[in-house]
Amino acid sequence: METRDPKVLNAITQTNTVNDPNIIYSNHTDHSFSKAEREALYQTIFSRRDVRGQFTSKPIPEDVLSRILTAAHYAPSVGFMQPWNFILIQKDETKQRVHNLFKKAHDEAADMFEGEKRKTYKTLKLEGIMESPLNICITCDKDRTGPVVIGRTHIKSMDLYSTVCAVQNLWLAARAEGVGVGWVSILDQKKLKQALKLPKRVTPVAYLCIGYVSEFFDKPELQSAGWLPRLPMAHVVNFEEYDKGADDSFAINLLEAMNQDQKAIEDGYYRK
Amino acid sequence: METRDPKVLNAITQTNTVNDPNIIYSNHTDHSFSKAEREALYQTIFSRRDVRGQFTSKPIPEDVLSRILTAAHYAPSVGFMQPWNFILIQKDETKQRVHNLFKKAHDEAADMFEGEKRKTYKTLKLEGIMESPLNICITCDKDRTGPVVIGRTHIKSMDLYSTVCAVQNLWLAARAEGVGVGWVSILDQKKLKQALKLPKRVTPVAYLCIGYVSEFFDKPELQSAGWLPRLPMAHVVNFEEYDKGADDSFAINLLEAMNQDQKAIEDGYYRK
Repeated sequence: METRDPKVLNAITQTNTVNDPNIIYSNHTDHSFSKAEREALYQTIFSRRDVRGQFTSKPIPEDVLSRILTAAHYAPSVGFMQPWNFILIQKDETKQRVHNLFKKAHDEAADMFEGEKRKTYKTLKLEGIMESPLNICITCDKDRTGPVVIGRTHIKSMDLYSTVCAVQNLWLAARAEGVGVGWVSILDQKKLKQALKLPKRVTPVAYLCIGYVSEFFDKPELQSAGWLPRLPMAHVVNFEEYDKGADDSFAINLLEAMNQDQKAIEDGYYRK
Repeated sequence: METRDPKVLNAITQTNTVNDPNIIYSNHTDHSFSKAEREALYQTIFSRRDVRGQFTSKPIPEDVLSRILTAAHYAPSVGFMQPWNFILIQKDETKQRVHNLFKKAHDEAADMFEGEKRKTYKTLKLEGIMESPLNICITCDKDRTGPVVIGRTHIKSMDLYSTVCAVQNLWLAARAEGVGVGWVSILDQKKLKQALKLPKRVTPVAYLCIGYVSEFFDKPELQSAGWLPRLPMAHVVNFEEYDKGADDSFAINLLEAMNQDQKAIEDGYYRK
């Protein structure tokens, strides 16, 4: 365990940045990106969409796909185990096997909704398996680095969570490259494992449809369709305990800032 | 289901961009960001670190924290259910309760490693709960939008996966803001639920330590410590089937591009 004296650290910071502006060594506590760089990240995050119906057949060049996959591989992973594989699927025959699984699961799913919701559900397009030029199955090998993994000793699903971090990195990199991604989760996982010949120890975490798109929608489709509203930040940010709201000036100022940020997003400030 | 004729779509694209350059309407298939914007995203992804020992006590201003939390809230979520809560923890009393859980789990974990690995494990700093000015527990409420959720009908853990996407968005936004994040997973989840008074239906997905840092390391600590190597891209990218390597020119060109991208990262091209 390191011990720290916060007052000393603050004093060092002030010396570097305030008291002696002529010395050009950097302020070691400021590693933030420029405003333009931060805006680029936020535009990626806020204009990312789950794409189902807008794929074009334009192939993804190798250099673009390389950057997208490399971004995924540099996700955080528990115990640095990098448990993922990325199975690139381009053959119609393989896609068709997965699409058949989707159709079956989709019919089963429709029966789980009642009345109006069932009608709406049936009109929603929920995958682009055949139209997208590339599908990628991202898997998790729980045995990649042996049975005992740093950080997975108590929460066994940490390797699955690491794999999801890779999915999100891939999704964001693709958006910045102008490439759409749709996550198809209406599939029987056991049958998907068989269809892609995964070993027993390997879990298929995400099945993604990937390709250039005719457009990225301004808002998530389920939001535009009125299926569910976007929750206000105040509903999801708590203080010290679950569901506990703002009760000091820090919390009140934060909620005000979040309201403004959320309004900017919903008003299209980050539209690309 | 939409039907598409790929040849027609290619023809449309070509008309817009190639055959009539005087017409200024945009090529609707190109939604990519500028090179500088893409580089900003890649620098964020490749210089993100799991921070344990470099936290300073400098408080995070409300506007910075607002952007980080808003980025998390705009993660993808299955059926647009937005199942997450972000519990901000700043009181030493709350942190100490969680730190006690860490200490207990950490001792248990050490006993699971053998010989040299156990010795090395004990020297690793794996959390910054008390030193970081802010801890955030990100939770998943499985009942947020009722029992039946679009896209969660067949893979029940999709809501947990959505929550992890929010974690990764938060992590990346924090990095761009110069704020470090460390994910502490060496905790008994049941006891963590009690410590933070989570309702039964709510799962604690990630416990994060957050704050400005004295430095971001060039490489992941477990990589630098020689615990495990970074896997080459060729080990994790497969074609059409699990563990199947390159066997056509597309695959071979892709592997070559990925090797180059990975070399650039390891050589520090994306260092910030």
